[in-house]
Amino acid sequence: MNKIITIGRECGSGGRSIAQKLAGALSIPFYDRKLIEMAANETGLSEEFVQQAEEKTGSLLYNLYFSSRNLPLSDQVFIAQSKVIRQLADQGPCVIVGRCSDYVLRGRQDCVHIFIHAPAALREARVIRDYGVIESAAAAFVQKQDRRRAAYYNHFADGRWGDSRNYDLSLNSRLGENAVLRILLGAVKEEVPQ
Amino acid sequence: MNKIITIGRECGSGGRSIAQKLAGALSIPFYDRKLIEMAANETGLSEEFVQQAEEKTGSLLYNLYFSSRNLPLSDQVFIAQSKVIRQLADQGPCVIVGRCSDYVLRGRQDCVHIFIHAPAALREARVIRDYGVIESAAAAFVQKQDRRRAAYYNHFADGRWGDSRNYDLSLNSRLGENAVLRILLGAVKEEVPQ
Repeated sequence: MNKIITIGRECGSGGRSIAQKLAGALSIPFYDRKLIEMAANETGLSEEFVQQAEEKTGSLLYNLYFSSRNLPLSDQVFIAQSKVIRQLADQGPCVIVGRCSDYVLRGRQDCVHIFIHAPAALREARVIRDYGVIESAAAAFVQKQDRRRAAYYNHFADGRWGDSRNYDLSLNSRLGENAVLRILLGAVKEEVPQ
Repeated sequence: MNKIITIGRECGSGGRSIAQKLAGALSIPFYDRKLIEMAANETGLSEEFVQQAEEKTGSLLYNLYFSSRNLPLSDQVFIAQSKVIRQLADQGPCVIVGRCSDYVLRGRQDCVHIFIHAPAALREARVIRDYGVIESAAAAFVQKQDRRRAAYYNHFADGRWGDSRNYDLSLNSRLGENAVLRILLGAVKEEVPQ
């Protein structure tokens, strides 16, 4: 297995946990929030700053306020993160979660792009169980997270977040974490014809 | 394996051929255009009539002209086809291609819903090779077919055609037909937790 694996996921789908276990099973590095820190170091922006930019992507005022350089801060952060993603991919096989990494690495032949989703009821149950979200707030929590991810993706990438055509393989995690892992392990070991 | 498998696919993705081979490998029936004939028998509409309705879904005048019953003809055909799909599913494991079958059978626990797509270049090459479409017309041919499929799906189903969240497993057939078949065979054999 000599591939870069990118994984996008719905909130509460268990995609992050699946990504981590996939990386473990393949003995390759796993990158997630670290990317933000690396990107921040790259641009000289503090981590806090980068997180703020992320949470406010799309806020015109915020972008205007911070657009003392040529581009809005959110774009600067995206560009810096994209650079980091490409550097990580150049270092060899790994699993990268989120950050439009499928889009950033599109066109490279050594990648497999994956999206993990799940029915709303399962996702809500997961955020209640794993993130301590109270039951009455679970539906809104999941929807808000996904709106943010969709907005981020749809702003920077082309194609719509969650559209199967952006990915090589999309999976409903209702199949169960172990089943999803078995399917993914089978899939990433397939050679892609050139 | 005790499942109903539905397969949606982009034009030229090879999804139909994959569906046929999957049914063969699992020794279960494969249903495609036959559905239209069965639906036509069911409603007493001629096959020609049903095909016309399909090609003209969304044509207001056509629907008004033929809405001598309570519903537009295209809706009558859809309802009849949905009934056939449910009857086929009730008969036992099978592979059903297209006709919004994922949507029609949504909620049944014994189904696996699959979508097959591929990059434009591969799809165009396939329709040139397999359907005898001339090279200069291939892009338009593929786009027109897919617009029709999307319009049909988006009209009758909820969710957007090709959105990963409508399916359990979406696959890019650039992985190659044999690889896709191996992945699907592995996936459909997984037990879905209740």
